[in-house]
Amino acid sequence: MIRAAIVGGTGYTGVELLRLLANHPNVEIVAITSRTEAGRPVSKLFPNLRGYLDICFTEPEPAQLAAECDVVFFATPHGVAMDMVPALLAQNTRVIDLSADFRLADPTIWEQWYGRPHAAPHLLAEAVYGLPEINREAIRQARLIACPGCYPTAVQLGFLPLLEHQLVDPSRLIADAKSGASGAGRKAALGTLLCEAGENFKAYSVSGHRHLPEIIQGLQWASRSSVDLTFVPHLIPMIRGIHATLYAQLEHEVDLQELYEQRYAPEPFVDVLPPGSHPETRSVRGNNMCRLAIHRPSAGNTVIVLSVTDNLIKGASGQAIQNMNLMFGQEETRGLMHIAVIP
Amino acid sequence: MIRAAIVGGTGYTGVELLRLLANHPNVEIVAITSRTEAGRPVSKLFPNLRGYLDICFTEPEPAQLAAECDVVFFATPHGVAMDMVPALLAQNTRVIDLSADFRLADPTIWEQWYGRPHAAPHLLAEAVYGLPEINREAIRQARLIACPGCYPTAVQLGFLPLLEHQLVDPSRLIADAKSGASGAGRKAALGTLLCEAGENFKAYSVSGHRHLPEIIQGLQWASRSSVDLTFVPHLIPMIRGIHATLYAQLEHEVDLQELYEQRYAPEPFVDVLPPGSHPETRSVRGNNMCRLAIHRPSAGNTVIVLSVTDNLIKGASGQAIQNMNLMFGQEETRGLMHIAVIP
Amino acid sequence: MIRAAIVGGTGYTGVELLRLLANHPNVEIVAITSRTEAGRPVSKLFPNLRGYLDICFTEPEPAQLAAECDVVFFATPHGVAMDMVPALLAQNTRVIDLSADFRLADPTIWEQWYGRPHAAPHLLAEAVYGLPEINREAIRQARLIACPGCYPTAVQLGFLPLLEHQLVDPSRLIADAKSGASGAGRKAALGTLLCEAGENFKAYSVSGHRHLPEIIQGLQWASRSSVDLTFVPHLIPMIRGIHATLYAQLEHEVDLQELYEQRYAPEPFVDVLPPGSHPETRSVRGNNMCRLAIHRPSAGNTVIVLSVTDNLIKGASGQAIQNMNLMFGQEETRGLMHIAVIP
Amino acid sequence: MIRAAIVGGTGYTGVELLRLLANHPNVEIVAITSRTEAGRPVSKLFPNLRGYLDICFTEPEPAQLAAECDVVFFATPHGVAMDMVPALLAQNTRVIDLSADFRLADPTIWEQWYGRPHAAPHLLAEAVYGLPEINREAIRQARLIACPGCYPTAVQLGFLPLLEHQLVDPSRLIADAKSGASGAGRKAALGTLLCEAGENFKAYSVSGHRHLPEIIQGLQWASRSSVDLTFVPHLIPMIRGIHATLYAQLEHEVDLQELYEQRYAPEPFVDVLPPGSHPETRSVRGNNMCRLAIHRPSAGNTVIVLSVTDNLIKGASGQAIQNMNLMFGQEETRGLMHIAVIP
Repeated sequence: MIRAAIVGGTGYTGVELLRLLANHPNVEIVAITSRTEAGRPVSKLFPNLRGYLDICFTEPEPAQLAAECDVVFFATPHGVAMDMVPALLAQNTRVIDLSADFRLADPTIWEQWYGRPHAAPHLLAEAVYGLPEINREAIRQARLIACPGCYPTAVQLGFLPLLEHQLVDPSRLIADAKSGASGAGRKAALGTLLCEAGENFKAYSVSGHRHLPEIIQGLQWASRSSVDLTFVPHLIPMIRGIHATLYAQLEHEVDLQELYEQRYAPEPFVDVLPPGSHPETRSVRGNNMCRLAIHRPSAGNTVIVLSVTDNLIKGASGQAIQNMNLMFGQEETRGLMHIAVIP
Repeated sequence: MIRAAIVGGTGYTGVELLRLLANHPNVEIVAITSRTEAGRPVSKLFPNLRGYLDICFTEPEPAQLAAECDVVFFATPHGVAMDMVPALLAQNTRVIDLSADFRLADPTIWEQWYGRPHAAPHLLAEAVYGLPEINREAIRQARLIACPGCYPTAVQLGFLPLLEHQLVDPSRLIADAKSGASGAGRKAALGTLLCEAGENFKAYSVSGHRHLPEIIQGLQWASRSSVDLTFVPHLIPMIRGIHATLYAQLEHEVDLQELYEQRYAPEPFVDVLPPGSHPETRSVRGNNMCRLAIHRPSAGNTVIVLSVTDNLIKGASGQAIQNMNLMFGQEETRGLMHIAVIP
Repeated sequence: MIRAAIVGGTGYTGVELLRLLANHPNVEIVAITSRTEAGRPVSKLFPNLRGYLDICFTEPEPAQLAAECDVVFFATPHGVAMDMVPALLAQNTRVIDLSADFRLADPTIWEQWYGRPHAAPHLLAEAVYGLPEINREAIRQARLIACPGCYPTAVQLGFLPLLEHQLVDPSRLIADAKSGASGAGRKAALGTLLCEAGENFKAYSVSGHRHLPEIIQGLQWASRSSVDLTFVPHLIPMIRGIHATLYAQLEHEVDLQELYEQRYAPEPFVDVLPPGSHPETRSVRGNNMCRLAIHRPSAGNTVIVLSVTDNLIKGASGQAIQNMNLMFGQEETRGLMHIAVIP
Repeated sequence: MIRAAIVGGTGYTGVELLRLLANHPNVEIVAITSRTEAGRPVSKLFPNLRGYLDICFTEPEPAQLAAECDVVFFATPHGVAMDMVPALLAQNTRVIDLSADFRLADPTIWEQWYGRPHAAPHLLAEAVYGLPEINREAIRQARLIACPGCYPTAVQLGFLPLLEHQLVDPSRLIADAKSGASGAGRKAALGTLLCEAGENFKAYSVSGHRHLPEIIQGLQWASRSSVDLTFVPHLIPMIRGIHATLYAQLEHEVDLQELYEQRYAPEPFVDVLPPGSHPETRSVRGNNMCRLAIHRPSAGNTVIVLSVTDNLIKGASGQAIQNMNLMFGQEETRGLMHIAVIP
């Protein structure tokens, strides 16, 4: 059994880790921590867990976690993991960080977007970016995983085949992305009240979203060239799901459908739909899949890729468990084969 | 392996049976039928199943189903099962009917509510009402199960302990029930369009809903007396979930919390919440549980029971599988331990 | 022109007052106050007002409000108005309080439910309960209006004809009430996030809601007897609207439909639907109407009244303006004849 | 008084015309027709109109409509107006067609997208495209108005200033557009059931949507050049509102904010938001405004325009009334100054 703990378990990625890990046949949940909720049963916050996982939140104690766990998941806001990770690694406990702390290879860019110096820059080179579709072998060997963000997962999986083969102009990429409100996390805030975000649609952070540098970094790794991306996120009046509508300018002729199907044939969690399809976010609700469709209207040069994920699963907690499976020599899909819930 | 088929698989109870059976370790799905969709992959209608269940709809052929299956589920509108069931039983194939055809013991009442004579009245005495919480042993022996309706499940489980002990006035029961729109099924209809049912709340069928005689029948079995129930269903602007708010007049003093906890302690799918609780429908979304809370404001004589289920699971497809497990000697909870999805 | 100010204008009743008053032909909005937002344009908080009402929030200054206004609306949390009202009345400025401060005639009951002594108990006898359907003449003469709560409006209008004629047992009344999330106000809170309240349904405050004593007081005025009410509020996953499902036990035979139609024939904002109807909350969305339907299933003794209002209009801001019209000799319906928005 | 009739009044643009016209001080609604609902009160279909507009649907009789009306609105599916309009015009009744019949100047393109020959091609030259922001003077003189589609309104108003001044590359325009479900109309269809379209987001018709030729036609008029547009519509899980996210490549330096503000300063129903804004669809819910924001991230060459409208108002019925006001010498904003409903 893999002994696992979750630090910062009161958010939506935390409850989703719990839901998925509680059903994972090879995992024992050793602890779930929260400074504010220590001593309270998790089922008080998350009534779905009642009868399935009857444990209480505890105070986060790094030494104890290191002693008791094989792996620690961080489901914390940015800035928390980078303070605690060095102590855990020092005791040979592996870390899967769902926050942004180790996603950017360059600490100056991190500082620029997060407004303070990085606390553990010496670990950035070691941290493995946890997108199995590009880093599977490195993940198997990793001690520290930087789990990709929700938008970055949907956007990168959509663009990868085009960029890896240098088929499109890397200076003219557009990602028009839409997310359900759970992407904003479980925190009291006016903007995501049902009365504010319900029956409403809007763009936000058009001048610059923190996921932008992460996406560009990933696209540059794929294209091995400089990339210019216009990224516009929007808030959908629903709970779960990301839909990224991606635009690129084709520079070389190729059978796009075949390209995508071949690229992702070995991938258990990327599904290339038949030509002419329109993937729906609900087709992956509660599920670790990314579903893609490729369009080229009027046989012109503009390629449109439609990419959907569940922002809390493939965009966060499911992907984290996929990483864990790889790190611990488990079957990659174990504990992740839930069918999406429709309707 | 239990060889199972689903007749009429294009509705919401059909897709939910598929989702649950596809993950059931002891079931092989032999066929799913639909006259209108025969030949089409189920994943065309239900994109969540793509990659998990790649079979096609077929024409319903009773002889073939009987030959190939141990059990046939009917997820059809009323009036279909009663025509096909006799042939299946004659060949020793067991039947779990999710429709209303075999729920009412009295064929004259069936005729009165459904507007035509019952086609197989000779089977009504044999059909077992598939509510395991009252009929577990009979279910184990049954050839033909009449799976309870969604409202009847939530209402009966809420009232049972009070009526079984004759603690309340059986002539003054009220069930103010609310259901998500999936209760209306997957059919093109103006009333359940997003633009009609969304951001809206209303009662319907106050003068008489087809679930009323089924509920009264069940409550009378429990109380062993005549019962008068006022039943008002409402449509909630959401997809899944039933919330029944039940009112009864207490006639004998008793510790209600203890009564409910003892009654349901052995039940794997009924959860009595602590005093003061308010169960949420989302706490059972995608899950086979019924969660209950008991209130008695100001220590008066009015007892309020709050009862929530997922209308498609414990109110339909999950309960059907719970019945199947019992009929085939499986562990009752097998394939039904999914944790509800929150958020 | 009636010179009007709003104290505490950052909530949903505040913006709704602004929307309705901005289109009222006889009103000049002199000020809208907010301690936290003073200096900020109202259209920053409420983008619907941009181009229609380009004023800024100001600090609340009672002396200045008294000098400049004919009437001051309080759209504040409870406990604010009772401190400021005496100074306004002293300068002959009339007050319409949308909060709970002056709704309960008995200050000890107020203290019991709000946890502190009332600050202006000497004004309780003067305050007029602003339900025009029972208090029209008193409202015309009033200096101080206590505007009814949202649940109390829907429940009282539904029960009034039955109680005024002593037709039902006053000790056995049930109000199963459901409200959209805007009833919880515009404040950052976990419970009304889209991800918590969306796609979910639950009861709350079953052990006692602050609107209960107000409703009982009103029902007792109507029945001129003691009243016992079981009141269960629920949260609907939508923004606006209240649906009260009311149950009473008939003790005298009467033509209920005719009773209601006659009682409300002169009322511009109460609409009795034809027999067999099910009023929808959206039929009054953005509108000051209360729509009612009366049912008596199987001709039994249980009467069911269905009552819908927009909790922010007839349940708050629209009713406040209806009161203002009466107080200032305007036509009662002026500025309130918006047709509900469907779909 | 302008005597007006509506042909085909059972859809969402029909009820919205009724709602707006019923409050218009200079309009008398003479008739509303529907073959299927003739004889039924409109308030049976649209309960919001009860008490405000108590008329019945009638059979469409062109001769009678021509005799009794100054103007006839067509709120019909495509293909109906083109058959009836010639007779109306022949009797000097003016026509405002909300359907697609007269929007495309070239009948061969109409035939290509709608699959049959145009029935009144001789009227295409006379028909005036009813977008007041480009055609105000022609509208004043018109007998026949082709009211723009919902997507075309939002997209054209967003792009116009850029194209009129040839500031961007006309061969590289992208419109990523999102619409609430009311855009699909009021018809029983699986795809827009609450259980299918709720809690879900998807693109549709990526290979070609019928609004595409209309948008391109309008953009070409503005730019006086050939235009290439990539248009991707999406379905939002909400009722009302369109959000168009527009992308263009800047070729000439200009102060974009000033450009837009000057272009639209005289327009009563186009609102250019301050720099850095993100317009919300709810800010125009129930309102005839189009709100725009212009972004240029990192001062690069990609211009992003965010454009929101209510698809049923500025995208349909409100714009139709704006046209009527112009045609009949009324103040352009009359009957259209409703403030959007928030929350």
